[in-house]
Amino acid sequence: MEVLGNRCGPGILPLVVVVLSPDTKEETVAWLLRRIREKQQAGGAELLVNQLRTEVVVKEKENPNIFLVGASCQRLLFGAEDLGLFKEFSDGSMRSFTCINSHNFKEFHGDGDGFLSMAECQYIIKHELETLRAKDETHVPGYTQAKLYPGKSIIRRLQSKRILIQMFPLHDREELKRLSFKWYKKVKPSLQPLDDIRYYYGEGLALYFGFLEYFTMALVPLALMGLLYCQFDWKNYDKYVFFAAFNLIWCTVILELWKRCSASLAYHWGTLSRKKVFEEPRPGFHGILGFNPVTGREEPLYPNSKRQLRIYLVSLPFVLFCLYLSLCVMMIYFQMEGWALMLHEREPTFWTEILLYIPGVIYAVVIEVMNLIYRYAAEFLTEWENHRLESSYQNHLVLKVLVFNFLNCFASLFYIAFIMQDLVLLRQNLATLLITSQIINQFMEAFLPYWLQRRRNKMAMKEVSLNVQVRLENDMSTYLGTFDDYLELFLLFGYVSLFSSVYPLAAVFVVLNNITEIYSDAFKMCKLFKRPFSDPAANIGIWQLAFEAMSVIAIVTNCTLIGMSPQARAFFPDSEMHLMLWTVAVEHGLLAFKFILAFLVPDVPKHIQIKLARLEFESMEALKKKKMFDIPVLRRVAREEEGEINT
Amino acid sequence: MEVLGNRCGPGILPLVVVVLSPDTKEETVAWLLRRIREKQQAGGAELLVNQLRTEVVVKEKENPNIFLVGASCQRLLFGAEDLGLFKEFSDGSMRSFTCINSHNFKEFHGDGDGFLSMAECQYIIKHELETLRAKDETHVPGYTQAKLYPGKSIIRRLQSKRILIQMFPLHDREELKRLSFKWYKKVKPSLQPLDDIRYYYGEGLALYFGFLEYFTMALVPLALMGLLYCQFDWKNYDKYVFFAAFNLIWCTVILELWKRCSASLAYHWGTLSRKKVFEEPRPGFHGILGFNPVTGREEPLYPNSKRQLRIYLVSLPFVLFCLYLSLCVMMIYFQMEGWALMLHEREPTFWTEILLYIPGVIYAVVIEVMNLIYRYAAEFLTEWENHRLESSYQNHLVLKVLVFNFLNCFASLFYIAFIMQDLVLLRQNLATLLITSQIINQFMEAFLPYWLQRRRNKMAMKEVSLNVQVRLENDMSTYLGTFDDYLELFLLFGYVSLFSSVYPLAAVFVVLNNITEIYSDAFKMCKLFKRPFSDPAANIGIWQLAFEAMSVIAIVTNCTLIGMSPQARAFFPDSEMHLMLWTVAVEHGLLAFKFILAFLVPDVPKHIQIKLARLEFESMEALKKKKMFDIPVLRRVAREEEGEINT
Repeated sequence: MEVLGNRCGPGILPLVVVVLSPDTKEETVAWLLRRIREKQQAGGAELLVNQLRTEVVVKEKENPNIFLVGASCQRLLFGAEDLGLFKEFSDGSMRSFTCINSHNFKEFHGDGDGFLSMAECQYIIKHELETLRAKDETHVPGYTQAKLYPGKSIIRRLQSKRILIQMFPLHDREELKRLSFKWYKKVKPSLQPLDDIRYYYGEGLALYFGFLEYFTMALVPLALMGLLYCQFDWKNYDKYVFFAAFNLIWCTVILELWKRCSASLAYHWGTLSRKKVFEEPRPGFHGILGFNPVTGREEPLYPNSKRQLRIYLVSLPFVLFCLYLSLCVMMIYFQMEGWALMLHEREPTFWTEILLYIPGVIYAVVIEVMNLIYRYAAEFLTEWENHRLESSYQNHLVLKVLVFNFLNCFASLFYIAFIMQDLVLLRQNLATLLITSQIINQFMEAFLPYWLQRRRNKMAMKEVSLNVQVRLENDMSTYLGTFDDYLELFLLFGYVSLFSSVYPLAAVFVVLNNITEIYSDAFKMCKLFKRPFSDPAANIGIWQLAFEAMSVIAIVTNCTLIGMSPQARAFFPDSEMHLMLWTVAVEHGLLAFKFILAFLVPDVPKHIQIKLARLEFESMEALKKKKMFDIPVLRRVAREEEGEINT
Repeated sequence: MEVLGNRCGPGILPLVVVVLSPDTKEETVAWLLRRIREKQQAGGAELLVNQLRTEVVVKEKENPNIFLVGASCQRLLFGAEDLGLFKEFSDGSMRSFTCINSHNFKEFHGDGDGFLSMAECQYIIKHELETLRAKDETHVPGYTQAKLYPGKSIIRRLQSKRILIQMFPLHDREELKRLSFKWYKKVKPSLQPLDDIRYYYGEGLALYFGFLEYFTMALVPLALMGLLYCQFDWKNYDKYVFFAAFNLIWCTVILELWKRCSASLAYHWGTLSRKKVFEEPRPGFHGILGFNPVTGREEPLYPNSKRQLRIYLVSLPFVLFCLYLSLCVMMIYFQMEGWALMLHEREPTFWTEILLYIPGVIYAVVIEVMNLIYRYAAEFLTEWENHRLESSYQNHLVLKVLVFNFLNCFASLFYIAFIMQDLVLLRQNLATLLITSQIINQFMEAFLPYWLQRRRNKMAMKEVSLNVQVRLENDMSTYLGTFDDYLELFLLFGYVSLFSSVYPLAAVFVVLNNITEIYSDAFKMCKLFKRPFSDPAANIGIWQLAFEAMSVIAIVTNCTLIGMSPQARAFFPDSEMHLMLWTVAVEHGLLAFKFILAFLVPDVPKHIQIKLARLEFESMEALKKKKMFDIPVLRRVAREEEGEINT
């Protein structure tokens, strides 16, 4: 790969691409480059940055304002210390990296070249760019409407004013080729190379693939049992009781174990005990200028009470209204289907038979449209709620979308199961929904983009110059995060767990789907998308909660389904009351079991708990010996106060 | 108060009393005193210690081995830094105390005299004594069977071999007099002086009194409503539905708010963000000598798996068996009562009427005896489980005793409510149990000890010499912790919440009881017991969980009670099934509401969250500037490894 232009020393790679809008004023560009290059003492980022050379024949539409950012090895190591990256120490434990101790870290040789992975370097550069703060500028040079104040992140302001179009890390073609061979191009089936994925894409994505793999493996026993049940008579409900009980406990256990598994991965990747750096406000966040009570920096403040009012008085009613609307649409669908069936029964012709399918098609289309509109509305509302942090924005968005998708996917099944109480129809619908959604997903997610991409740039496969590579990657679509991937898994988990007592075969389909999903997701990440910035996640976040909520709901639904089954009724021929009491008692028992289990199983495995405790102990012992940080300002205040008393 | 003998400087108070067994060998005493007095660099505790002068006329049985321990002001300040005590900083935030910054702390004047409260000083001395470690001694001099090894806590070994009988902090008579006037001797009713209680007794006890007060206040609205209901017809069930619903939500809300309230108190007392020091193993803990994986110190190790086996294969079955036994006893009681009633109805004489009361009396006696035996068994089992830490020993003991007491107190009420379905009898029994248990408790807890104490030492009231004071306090009984006090509150909470829909008056009785409880507990702490060491608790620990579990059970019982009421039945005259479905649905709704509420309400108030975040931010910023601790040993290892590669 080519190195950064003449200003950079030998062997320094370009890491991050910054794309400004083509009509950016020259003084703005010059100012930005100067701020990026300035020494840290002078408030700059002390990074290396160069404009991408335009091709000899400049195409009409080609954007000249593409910049490559890199940094010296030393600068990156300082950045790693700033961020508190955890690396493996010589005794095998994970410790916060510090330059002074650098030679005590494993894999640190010479001047530290190759110590940080490319993804880490890119993450550091992203962080340094984002924390590049305005000094005494009152606005971005050339754009008087783009206000700045001391301490405001320059990059965030440029983003919110759409002067900065995007910022993305470069792929490393050779590394990527090696990764893809290990990951999805191999013939022999084996586990995914999670450490390599994490090395290349960072912890957030590696945790997603780890979870996908774990989830698939965890479903294999259920799938095998499902296949066994398939051998028996289809109408033999009573064995399903056993299956359902096993399923419920299994779901609880695997979710508990995943927490431990995820903690284990996160520990070895150094994100478990890493303190989060204080997040910058989101680009879209606005408010009245004030002082952040935590950092003391000047930044916009927005009262939490106002946000709460917006959430509870606008967003919550809106979500509830949408849920209600979705239920109405479902009721209309069932009515339409009833009419169609009635028509068909009255005079069964070819046309009335076609008519039978029409309500289903209309319902499917309406649902898709509603999903789309709702997604936009949810994004708009969450933006309007004006969350300060990207993470809390994401959580609120996920929650909104999750609830709606859950209802859309499962409401009709709930209706069939508990209002119509038609278990045969339930099984049919479940199978249809599961299989069609899988086919559509696979098609939309992998084959379509693959085909489009293949047509678009065959040249991308060849060895190309850095110049061409940057422009090619600039045109690739942006990976929008793991949200949709997790959502898909969440809905599949719903199909497996909610109605497992009537359709054990669901697990088989989900396992098959997940296996292809691993390959198509891997392919999509390696070939179709821009490289995403790594995201140092310590766990799967709000999704753990979502999966656990689903498993609680599954206990309620399955107990009810079993209580409704003819076999259960046959057990209590005289009294429905007794049957009901038993069902409720069993359900409460299972719920209690679930919560007690969650309480008893520690979320972090013992050997990692010990390592974390040791780290804490050592830092406490060290603090005892060292003097604590002292705060010059406060000391001065204290001295002045003393002076006042004296005079 | 007199000062420590000739070895100590002027103005140094004796703080802690160490009592050795009267027949301790002289060489042991001399060795212990030397170790306590030795400089810290030499591995000593650097404290001041003197033997209590015996009276001129030595009584036959008087123990000569009573020692007074004190420390210089400077030594105590170093100890406070060691322990990481949090004190108020000049900017109003709470910070870990450091000697170098001492003048930036509020209330720090001159050389720091009076900066630490007496309770803090005593806690520091206790900690310093407990972390006084053996150097090269292989056993306690004079006791070859009392083995020592480098790093073993000397005091813990002396305790486990019963050479050290007890160690307690001295009361401060003047301070105590002031406190008792503020606390329970005042005429005008007002809130308790929680800050003063904390100043004198430490955070653990202050949190108990804080909780007691909070709980009482929180019950006042319920008590008022209960009184209102009392005005209505006693048999008018349907208004109870409203009361029960209010009660359930109220219980959930007050428990959530208590967490915030407790966090607020703990923040201002400096225990919320204080890192716990690594606990020493309990005196009774035994195992094979090895190296603690966290601290690297030599100490006994006991495999966790063995402990788990003991818990799940012995303790758990034993507890379950006891619970079963208790149920059996209850069934026998009901049968006996049935017989007595039958006999009385067959030929009603004076003797058969007396016979009616006999089963109840026998049952009450048997329960008390079972409670006593079970308590011993639980202590024995928990001891045998061989927990390393005092805190985990306490948690396991609390859990065992809690479950058994819960069953003993409430099983008969459950039986009457749900098996016999006799709501009138339930109300009668509830009232009887509540009122008798209160009367007995007040009598046993306050009046009896008060009377005994009064008889024993009238002279304690007078001004006495230090010498006499120490011997008097030595004879006072030891306060065994807040366990029994919390247990009592827990059971009272059960009476209020579990069956509130049939007996709203319960809250009134509990409020009355709590008010007297505050006074009797305060009196008991000030007059009857040795001063306890302060316990830097950040919350009420496992009791929060216990109260929350109770409020979950209350939702289930109250929904069932309402579902069984004639009014609810009248609502669904045709179908019991529908009534049942509704009951279950409402119950699930309430449970979901409870969990969502617990999830939504942050456990720590916003303004304290901000303060904690600021502290963390500052320490991170400081770490960025400072070099991290380096570990010489590891560095040497790394160098050696490098050397190996080179050679």
